[in-house]
Amino acid sequence: MSTSIPGGEILLSALSSCGVEICLANPGTSEMHAVAALSRVPQIRGVLGLQENVVTGAADGYARMAGKPAATLLHLGPGLANGTANLHNAARAHSPIVNVVGDHATYHKRYDAPLESDIESLARPVSSWIRRVARTDDIASDAAAAYEAAMTPPGGVATLILPSDLTWNTSEDDSYASGRVIPPRVPHARLVPPVDLEPALKALCSGKPTTIFLDHPYISAAMISLARQVCSLTGAKLIGPTFPARLEHGLGVPTLERLAYLAELASAQLAGCRHLVLVGARSPVSFFAYPGQPSDLVPAGCRTYVAAGPADDCEKALADLLDGCLLHAHQAPGSNLPGGDAQGGDGGQAHLEHQPPGSAIAPRSSEHLDPDGRLDARSAASVLAALLPESAIVSDEGNTAGLYFADAMATSPPHDWLCLTGGAIGQGLPVATGAALACPDRPVIAIEADGSAMYTFQALWTQAREDLDVTTIILDNGAYEVLEMELMRVNAEGASPHANAMLELRDPSLDFVSLARGLGVPGQRAETVGELREALSKAFAEPGPHLVQAAVGRLF
Amino acid sequence: MSTSIPGGEILLSALSSCGVEICLANPGTSEMHAVAALSRVPQIRGVLGLQENVVTGAADGYARMAGKPAATLLHLGPGLANGTANLHNAARAHSPIVNVVGDHATYHKRYDAPLESDIESLARPVSSWIRRVARTDDIASDAAAAYEAAMTPPGGVATLILPSDLTWNTSEDDSYASGRVIPPRVPHARLVPPVDLEPALKALCSGKPTTIFLDHPYISAAMISLARQVCSLTGAKLIGPTFPARLEHGLGVPTLERLAYLAELASAQLAGCRHLVLVGARSPVSFFAYPGQPSDLVPAGCRTYVAAGPADDCEKALADLLDGCLLHAHQAPGSNLPGGDAQGGDGGQAHLEHQPPGSAIAPRSSEHLDPDGRLDARSAASVLAALLPESAIVSDEGNTAGLYFADAMATSPPHDWLCLTGGAIGQGLPVATGAALACPDRPVIAIEADGSAMYTFQALWTQAREDLDVTTIILDNGAYEVLEMELMRVNAEGASPHANAMLELRDPSLDFVSLARGLGVPGQRAETVGELREALSKAFAEPGPHLVQAAVGRLF
Repeated sequence: MSTSIPGGEILLSALSSCGVEICLANPGTSEMHAVAALSRVPQIRGVLGLQENVVTGAADGYARMAGKPAATLLHLGPGLANGTANLHNAARAHSPIVNVVGDHATYHKRYDAPLESDIESLARPVSSWIRRVARTDDIASDAAAAYEAAMTPPGGVATLILPSDLTWNTSEDDSYASGRVIPPRVPHARLVPPVDLEPALKALCSGKPTTIFLDHPYISAAMISLARQVCSLTGAKLIGPTFPARLEHGLGVPTLERLAYLAELASAQLAGCRHLVLVGARSPVSFFAYPGQPSDLVPAGCRTYVAAGPADDCEKALADLLDGCLLHAHQAPGSNLPGGDAQGGDGGQAHLEHQPPGSAIAPRSSEHLDPDGRLDARSAASVLAALLPESAIVSDEGNTAGLYFADAMATSPPHDWLCLTGGAIGQGLPVATGAALACPDRPVIAIEADGSAMYTFQALWTQAREDLDVTTIILDNGAYEVLEMELMRVNAEGASPHANAMLELRDPSLDFVSLARGLGVPGQRAETVGELREALSKAFAEPGPHLVQAAVGRLF
Repeated sequence: MSTSIPGGEILLSALSSCGVEICLANPGTSEMHAVAALSRVPQIRGVLGLQENVVTGAADGYARMAGKPAATLLHLGPGLANGTANLHNAARAHSPIVNVVGDHATYHKRYDAPLESDIESLARPVSSWIRRVARTDDIASDAAAAYEAAMTPPGGVATLILPSDLTWNTSEDDSYASGRVIPPRVPHARLVPPVDLEPALKALCSGKPTTIFLDHPYISAAMISLARQVCSLTGAKLIGPTFPARLEHGLGVPTLERLAYLAELASAQLAGCRHLVLVGARSPVSFFAYPGQPSDLVPAGCRTYVAAGPADDCEKALADLLDGCLLHAHQAPGSNLPGGDAQGGDGGQAHLEHQPPGSAIAPRSSEHLDPDGRLDARSAASVLAALLPESAIVSDEGNTAGLYFADAMATSPPHDWLCLTGGAIGQGLPVATGAALACPDRPVIAIEADGSAMYTFQALWTQAREDLDVTTIILDNGAYEVLEMELMRVNAEGASPHANAMLELRDPSLDFVSLARGLGVPGQRAETVGELREALSKAFAEPGPHLVQAAVGRLF
């Protein structure tokens, strides 16, 4: 009765039964039996990355768009470490990932061979779940448990550590035979009760300055629309996260004001707020600490209400809040709701966010720009906004130079916007790669800062190899400009040339067109509006990956 | 009496007082006060890396050649994670590094801001010492303690976690003022006693098959010579590590047979050994586990003796062993020493390692090669061996394709050979960069496998920026050939095309000349012996970095 299926094949079969379709890998010797099994489990597509942070970032982008995990295949502790920064971003995005890390054979661990390290210690900071497989017989159930853990709301990185001998040994229990594994029941997001919405409802209907702070791994148009209806009824203000994991955006999608990156601007957005209603979001904090700036962005005297936690069904929570507000308006027509007769002293706030949709939005055209004009951060944004293809996915790691893109593209055809959730730069190109693997019929655009691009530029090779329709726009300002700004902000004495050299990307300048060519991706440099227009038009018209190096210069 | 020196400046001043001359950095917002201080502490040279694994690998290469630490400057947990693989290699090389990781402000930690992570958990697997600075007043003493910890034999990675507010606050204790810090007493390697050499001496003089296994962060010609003298007297065999951190090599340096990477070959090297004398080395184990292969390479029935541990003074241990052997030979002229009358049944082993120096060594010339002949791994090695400049430093991450270089270069002018100590690929180019920073007057050559090069290719930009005399030879075989070999070894059923695609670096092929150009380094492709000869001659004749992509094809 016993089967002779080696553990490596059991792993892939079990993952396939769960619904995993892609294995993003940068394997080594200890993963060779899993690699060999790829030919015997053709339901799983193996995709190679030249460095592990490409692998993990692509798994993140895939998860954001597919709504389910890819598997990774990483080589021991150092391989995991190489991919940890993008696992950090994925964890912050609540992206489900089945993160498979090969290890030495069980009996080899104690010899402290050169590649031995404490994988658990490395994995813990980025994993919501960790398990070390103990027996080949456990591989299928452990893989299913990893899938379930990754998918458990709000989603996370489930790290499965797999000793190599378990992949070459065979299982004696044929209930784990290929294709016969029972897929795990994946838990759904909880419905909103047990959360009691009454306190939040009361706050919203109080007529006092109230802000809804909304976050979710996928902030859909439906969610924003529900939240804005609540705001329309109550005069509340709506704010979204600084860096959403995935946000519906563009023409017809109600706009979502995002919390500013800079603490002083974020404080201004929340100034005067008396009630803060959290929907899927955690209480807002500043990205970094600065001398004399508060870390906690909730203004003094403001009360916080949790309408939905990160693992809750936020759309349901918003719908229930809307129902509650409508009921309240019915039951108490003379209540504090705007449109009622008692706006209260702070009711004027309602005016602030009731700008007509699109009022601050540039028209979707770049005709007003001189084609011979030199590019800058603003005109580059206008050009892309005017040319953005239908149903695009945008991976945004534009950082400082990318400041204007989201606003400019508010009237572009509706698209998904994927941000740098965890602040660990080097995310943009891998996430674009993974998004393109998840959505082969949708064009993907990476808006990428030059400094950040250099962390994981190897992603372009995978784009070329898999013939992915990704257009990378490098915003070339020749510097870590965000750090120059930070240096100015923290260093009142003035930045010196010596220190500044540490933040410049010149001498030599980076030639991204050559770099792309080296990885098999055609590239073009654009110095003017017209050149960018032409380069992007060409990139969007042709299948496969392209790169455009846009010389946008400094913002400041 | 109180000073107003900010913590960032105190850090650099204290490190400078200890003897640190270089700060290799990829900083972020939380490190801006340390970056700003670079202009006020000009004794420390700031060197920028485009990705953290370049920074840490360069710190490793610097330490191997300078014999003292550089400081790093990394950005929070993700920055540390990006540099962890090369810290792993550095830890295995016992390279001293003062690894400074910036963190959020002390009061900001509890808010779990997007870049928050458990830095200690990430640092522990690669650090021999970790400290989180608690007060600005402690920065100088903690920096000195980190320096001391890094330098404590056998050397290691000392991780200093520095919250940002401590760098912008000033110290109230002016004994820490710039330049007035008392440098720490750096401990020296212990002299050999307390280790009792007698049992090892007895083993060596037993006439039984005995092997000396030697390792050290810097295996000098003097050490090899002492060890070989012991072998000559006793008939013992000498074996060095598979991947030495730094090894003197070349014409006039006694050769050191190295333990094979493959377990079956390593087992053959040690077969029949009855006594194993460890000098600075740990007991030999196989790099990976393989089905049916032992992990412990010590043959059954072989006894192990520790003549010197990794932290001991190995040269002194070898000198003492030699004295002991000489004394033994005097006291017991009729003993079991070779040359005496009682070689014992296994004495024939003595013959094995008493090959005349250079017997298996190709002459230092490539004149016998047809200049129009297509390159392969062997001819590429001959060409480099013939052209190697005087006093070179060789960073060897040639892996499979690099198999023949060490033997070919045994008659090249004496040079230092730096290996992939921890098996985490992506070390070669950063280590070459750091070695060039430590030794600006010596030419540095990186022998680099194509797959490994792609992990940390960004190092070339730092080489261009700092105008380092590094010649990178990319051994282009279009594959992770070591993994193809491993796949064949573990997968008796035969490797399938599907799985093999995961190990190929084609489709598209990597164009390293374009990649180098993108980073400001001139490159050239060589397909024939003559082209490689010409390209290397040009690279060695000109200052600054160069790259040569040598199309060597597959070895197997």
